[in-house]
Amino acid sequence: MDSDPGFVAAVEEAKTGFGEGGVPIGACLVSKEGKILGRGHNMRVQKDSATLHAEISTLENTGRLPASAYKGATMYTSLSPCDMCTGACVLYKVARVVIGENKTFVGGEAYLKQRGIEVIVLENKECQDLMSKFIEEKPGVWYEDIGE
Amino acid sequence: MDSDPGFVAAVEEAKTGFGEGGVPIGACLVSKEGKILGRGHNMRVQKDSATLHAEISTLENTGRLPASAYKGATMYTSLSPCDMCTGACVLYKVARVVIGENKTFVGGEAYLKQRGIEVIVLENKECQDLMSKFIEEKPGVWYEDIGE
Repeated sequence: MDSDPGFVAAVEEAKTGFGEGGVPIGACLVSKEGKILGRGHNMRVQKDSATLHAEISTLENTGRLPASAYKGATMYTSLSPCDMCTGACVLYKVARVVIGENKTFVGGEAYLKQRGIEVIVLENKECQDLMSKFIEEKPGVWYEDIGE
Repeated sequence: MDSDPGFVAAVEEAKTGFGEGGVPIGACLVSKEGKILGRGHNMRVQKDSATLHAEISTLENTGRLPASAYKGATMYTSLSPCDMCTGACVLYKVARVVIGENKTFVGGEAYLKQRGIEVIVLENKECQDLMSKFIEEKPGVWYEDIGE
């Protein structure tokens, strides 16, 4: 599953974010049929945004869609989703959330499951290393991003 | 509480949204000290946005803040918050969510309480009438907005 096009795109997005000096978290939304609907990365630093986390950026970049378009979809994300991004996945009723890693941060995984969404954690080392490096380098930005 | 400056601002935002042909939901974030930190309204129609619900718009317009700035804050919103906006309030740990009405839609109120956030519902008739009129006129946009 680490080689799923949606996950590869999410990791690419995370790396792009890191290269831009931002919070290195990326995501990608893939339809039930396997089509990439949208992708994005955290834009806190780049756009001075308090809401454009990776999954929110991805949903925003995906654009307006009817509820049926999200049916059976998978949200790939490089990091365990925060409460806001968890809620966004619940709102649009994606079927599955595939998470790169949850060693550096654990978000709303339990709540996603409680709301009937399948959760898969890959424990991907590349994602872990990227986040560890970022948190070590810019702890202030990281704590701001998770409201702590 | 219907006359709190934050609530008055949220209702003004909802009306502005209606006037723009959008989803008429407004919000306003007020600090513990009573200062309006930011306000906004749903921008689905105006910006073709899948994520700029009223509370998300408000947090985005408020801009980047440290976690301490949200401490003790109140999110006023004209309508019961959806799962995404509920999650955003949980992420930033606002102390209280004051809701104009929950007759036309009930969002994540139970989850907010479960996460230790105070929830007050005003059952404000102006908010109810605005939403009822909108849902009757544009049901397709409404269902798209709540992912149904």
